[in-house]
Amino acid sequence: MKKVTAFAPATVANVSCGFDILGFAVEELGDKVTVSLSEQPGVRVVSIEGDGGRLPYESEKNTCSVAIQAFVDQVGFERGIEISLSKGLPLGSGMGSSAASSVAALVAANSLLGEPLGRKELLPFAMKAEGVACGAEHADNVAPSLLGGFVLIRSYKPLDVTRLHVPEGLYCTLVHPHFELNTADSRSVLRQQVSLKDAIIQSGNIAGLVAGLFQEDMGLISRSLQDVIAEPSRSVLIPGFDEIKEAIKDAGALGSGISGSGPTTFILSPSREIAQKASEICQEVFNKIGLEVDLYVSAVNVRGAYLINESKNEVL
Amino acid sequence: MKKVTAFAPATVANVSCGFDILGFAVEELGDKVTVSLSEQPGVRVVSIEGDGGRLPYESEKNTCSVAIQAFVDQVGFERGIEISLSKGLPLGSGMGSSAASSVAALVAANSLLGEPLGRKELLPFAMKAEGVACGAEHADNVAPSLLGGFVLIRSYKPLDVTRLHVPEGLYCTLVHPHFELNTADSRSVLRQQVSLKDAIIQSGNIAGLVAGLFQEDMGLISRSLQDVIAEPSRSVLIPGFDEIKEAIKDAGALGSGISGSGPTTFILSPSREIAQKASEICQEVFNKIGLEVDLYVSAVNVRGAYLINESKNEVL
Repeated sequence: MKKVTAFAPATVANVSCGFDILGFAVEELGDKVTVSLSEQPGVRVVSIEGDGGRLPYESEKNTCSVAIQAFVDQVGFERGIEISLSKGLPLGSGMGSSAASSVAALVAANSLLGEPLGRKELLPFAMKAEGVACGAEHADNVAPSLLGGFVLIRSYKPLDVTRLHVPEGLYCTLVHPHFELNTADSRSVLRQQVSLKDAIIQSGNIAGLVAGLFQEDMGLISRSLQDVIAEPSRSVLIPGFDEIKEAIKDAGALGSGISGSGPTTFILSPSREIAQKASEICQEVFNKIGLEVDLYVSAVNVRGAYLINESKNEVL
Repeated sequence: MKKVTAFAPATVANVSCGFDILGFAVEELGDKVTVSLSEQPGVRVVSIEGDGGRLPYESEKNTCSVAIQAFVDQVGFERGIEISLSKGLPLGSGMGSSAASSVAALVAANSLLGEPLGRKELLPFAMKAEGVACGAEHADNVAPSLLGGFVLIRSYKPLDVTRLHVPEGLYCTLVHPHFELNTADSRSVLRQQVSLKDAIIQSGNIAGLVAGLFQEDMGLISRSLQDVIAEPSRSVLIPGFDEIKEAIKDAGALGSGISGSGPTTFILSPSREIAQKASEICQEVFNKIGLEVDLYVSAVNVRGAYLINESKNEVL
């Protein structure tokens, strides 16, 4: 029976001054989904591995099946699809775990059905799955996981999504402490009013960050990576955040921020060496705090999700 | 005696969603300043034309002399400098009138003294003159008048100024009603607190506008030209603003906004033809209102202020 496998990368949403509008994809961490045709109608999750038994198999709850069901409802498909999910991403880490699963599922299913839709057209189905996973149809993880690179979500009504240029040599360090952060807590600390002054500072910084990406101006990117709106209230919930922020800049990293709503911290660096050095600094900080931490060093992904030939272990 | 003349362009500050951080220069409207050496020490304004007798000659009040004095204080110069100012810009119109004068003065004086400083290094002196002219050392008119194009002022402390890419074919219409708008009124209507939601919309729009400029994506520029922070409170002070906003979009213009703190409105268009059409629409709107209006159609200036050979009537 025909089978297709796709990989979709982890993502960082709420990129500092790009709070709620900017996300990016990483290269070397993500989820894999294999889909195959079935004579039995319907979209079914048949296996899940790497989730420690925490993810649901029910079609209306699993982000893979929710996304694929919305997709087949639109393109029209009578036969069944079976889904096998292999999690490479920790759940609830703020690295776009649910998004990587639904995006991998969609890219695989679209290929299985002979690519009836273009890449960007898959976005609404992945957003629908985000609605099931986290209560809101956010695009800031699914859009970069699908499209790659830095993705700006300028508006939701109507949906307006734009890929930005990614400078050569931009690397990322992800710092995931073994620490449960309640997303509701992380949301509740946000002030619903901001000063005009802070709104202007934030818009100057996001404009600088976007200009820095297009101009490949690492200095401007670094100076612009300052979030005066969400980070001041949220960062206090994340152990080690302030220590890391200072220490990695001394090592030549461009800056850091909270990934999604945490507890993962992302660090951007102008080379793999500095991203690696930042990772070592973070290990030291968490050794002192006495918390276990997972560390990942990766290029910024520029291609988004991709197909894999499982039998030959090749990227297609 | 050696003489140098420079032209500095009119500018639009507070470019819609770029409120307080983004300005651009226009090509065909501005002020001219001629400077010459004098045996009598000191920096003196010796003639002003085109101002209707409204501008001061006193060295500590005229923006030309304030700017040049700050410049010679830094580079060290013992002889005197005489200044002749020819205003091409209406005063208090929100088109960067004071900025064009001080920038033209600085570019001319820097040339007169053999270019001791680079273009960007002149910025602090022009900002000092803005402090004298309008009470705050803003850069959002002087920076684009000096450098040309769209200029982002990401931060003042420290000063961080970046030129952005200008798409081919971008034209501007300036609509200056004969109507006095008190700047203090225009400032006082600004809310000092904004909702988190509006701050996020504004940052999405400025990110979209910057990305649109770099990608030469006129559609994205158009969708992003929305200011949800200053314009809703300020636009009610400007006759014809809402009518113009609707009508010019129907004619193919990208969008409009308040220039500086008004009363001039700027319109961006993807061609000279559409900018001209927008100008005609504005004329009709103001005919109905019964207010006189000056209309200018111009390319976006990409070179900033420039030297002129007055005797040969050539641009140098």
